[in-house]
Amino acid sequence: MGDRIKRRIAILGSTGSIGQQTLEVARNLADRFEVVGLGAGKNVSLLSSQVEEFHPKLVSFQAGEGLSELPHGNYRLIPMEEIASHPEVELVVVATSGKAGLIPTLAALRAGKPIALANKEVLVMAGEIIMAEAKRHKIQILPLDSEHSAIWQCLQGEERGKVSRLLLTASGGPFWHYSLEQLAAVTPEEALKHPTWRMGKKVTIDSATLMNKGMEVIEAHWLFDIPFDHIDVMIHPTSVVHSLVEFVDGSVKAQLSPPDMRLPIQYALSYPERVSNWQLPKIDWSKFVSLSFERPEPGRFPCLEIAIEAGRKGGTYPAVLCAADEVAVELFLSGYIGFLEIAEVVREALEKHQPTNHPTLEEILAADQWTREYAKNWRPS
Amino acid sequence: MGDRIKRRIAILGSTGSIGQQTLEVARNLADRFEVVGLGAGKNVSLLSSQVEEFHPKLVSFQAGEGLSELPHGNYRLIPMEEIASHPEVELVVVATSGKAGLIPTLAALRAGKPIALANKEVLVMAGEIIMAEAKRHKIQILPLDSEHSAIWQCLQGEERGKVSRLLLTASGGPFWHYSLEQLAAVTPEEALKHPTWRMGKKVTIDSATLMNKGMEVIEAHWLFDIPFDHIDVMIHPTSVVHSLVEFVDGSVKAQLSPPDMRLPIQYALSYPERVSNWQLPKIDWSKFVSLSFERPEPGRFPCLEIAIEAGRKGGTYPAVLCAADEVAVELFLSGYIGFLEIAEVVREALEKHQPTNHPTLEEILAADQWTREYAKNWRPS
Repeated sequence: MGDRIKRRIAILGSTGSIGQQTLEVARNLADRFEVVGLGAGKNVSLLSSQVEEFHPKLVSFQAGEGLSELPHGNYRLIPMEEIASHPEVELVVVATSGKAGLIPTLAALRAGKPIALANKEVLVMAGEIIMAEAKRHKIQILPLDSEHSAIWQCLQGEERGKVSRLLLTASGGPFWHYSLEQLAAVTPEEALKHPTWRMGKKVTIDSATLMNKGMEVIEAHWLFDIPFDHIDVMIHPTSVVHSLVEFVDGSVKAQLSPPDMRLPIQYALSYPERVSNWQLPKIDWSKFVSLSFERPEPGRFPCLEIAIEAGRKGGTYPAVLCAADEVAVELFLSGYIGFLEIAEVVREALEKHQPTNHPTLEEILAADQWTREYAKNWRPS
Repeated sequence: MGDRIKRRIAILGSTGSIGQQTLEVARNLADRFEVVGLGAGKNVSLLSSQVEEFHPKLVSFQAGEGLSELPHGNYRLIPMEEIASHPEVELVVVATSGKAGLIPTLAALRAGKPIALANKEVLVMAGEIIMAEAKRHKIQILPLDSEHSAIWQCLQGEERGKVSRLLLTASGGPFWHYSLEQLAAVTPEEALKHPTWRMGKKVTIDSATLMNKGMEVIEAHWLFDIPFDHIDVMIHPTSVVHSLVEFVDGSVKAQLSPPDMRLPIQYALSYPERVSNWQLPKIDWSKFVSLSFERPEPGRFPCLEIAIEAGRKGGTYPAVLCAADEVAVELFLSGYIGFLEIAEVVREALEKHQPTNHPTLEEILAADQWTREYAKNWRPS
């Protein structure tokens, strides 16, 4: 009937912030995408309404309770890794959080399926394993993060070997101009107010500590095969320039757009084609536009430095980083520790950790387990 | 002997600012480029020293007098259009000024040679003819202007059909914040001090009036096949962002580098390869970098509006624009007319002109001739 052949996508983590925005894009471009799989962790009511709207053939729900609330329908209820490797699925959007994306990502790669990746911890914890698997199966990992999408866009038509530097921009969160004294007094409520992006709680706190940016440096290292010494972070408070790439001839390319995750999501979903979508906002150039960039002041954002150091050391260190940070952010949000103590928890976990080089997935998960125990019992020394 | 095969280039207009900087690039990358042709208009002493350094096989010199000053050597003295079409030449750099580049550019295209184009008037006066000829011979015209090079770089790996807007940046010259009263009193000495770029006199004045930017809009229209309604000009005083491209999905790419013509020159010469060259400056990101953009205030830069209007009308109008502006700038530099009268001369020439649609080269040159006579005799009404 003249219909376009739709790309069949599965969204793991469909009830999170990125998952919901991915479904918004799929809704707007319904002539291009068919949602064949949805997977969620615990929000059964949102998952139910998504199932009712999109009629996926494959559904996954991880929490034991609440299963009975899912609507009846013509779908199979299977684990996330089975959705990720299912023959019906052409592209797997990994929008889970924490280590939940690891096993499904590996399952998708081993089944030869391209991945659109938003779950930072997948590459931070297991970058070496994931990239080796992607290479083995000749699969491209498509970034959903705005920064990595910007770099990817800037690299179109360019040779990878001619890149001299990646410049990742960071909004700096709400506190980038605070003194250490002011930072020590930050409350969870203050930290949850992000100036430019709407995101989940964990990533909002990680943006305020710049831990998020440190993890993105590690991701960029793996995604684009660039040494840590050639990746810089720049504070750019308005989040219009999402990142920049410098080439060997001194030319720099930047990607700009209003801070809205739907653009990088759509770019990955429709790649290599750019698609017009009236719902995506555009920069208003009729107003005065001012863009500033500066290096973060050394010592002011310990989480950024700790993360990059863990990335450089490699092995099981980045897995410890992720687990310790996850626990520390929970402790902060629950009022058990102060804002600056997030960095202390992570730093001490990294110091106490017995590392393994070139770890297996099991060794990575063991390091994660050890770290959670350690961090949960952390007390100020 | 393991030597790289050098690209054999000819530089027409070698004694001008762009010509000299092209030779600087060729000197720095002597393992990649062989200068086989040099052509100049009137500066015989500089041409002589260039001939002594680069030993071209083909030399052109247009002025009648001074020929005897050229050094003896193993070269042939021939007209520019013969250099442009000579079998020895692989790439023709057209860095002449005014209408001098027209005939050699057509000769090069007809001989199937790629063109690196810095001579704005070539496309402004005869864009329709030049682009048709380039298409016929399947020749790419490589831009040397920083703005067009920026757009070209941003378009790498992108589909032309997905461009929604070109944003050309303009430093705004030394006077972009002046009132009309202040502009009326500007002297040639003040107008020749450009804040960011080192260039020849004519283009420096054209930068101060923004006539230069208007001509670049016309060039961009022809080079990238984008309608005038989809080309905007933004005042960006620091000349770091050389232009931007917006795509249909709202994503914008920008190209940045310190204001130095050697980068776009080198990019065109070595395309599609990017080449490391320690002499090219890099942006210092360790300092605070602030980039601002705003639309030029309507009515403040009449030359910009006049030029774009001439471009929209097409036909012989853009040729009249170029000729009238050239004469008007001379009149201004000689003290015969004021700064704001440059626009008046051009406006009145366009009003008095009897246009021809889809003109032949002869009709374009006739319009040029008529305009020069008209403009030379212009008096304030």
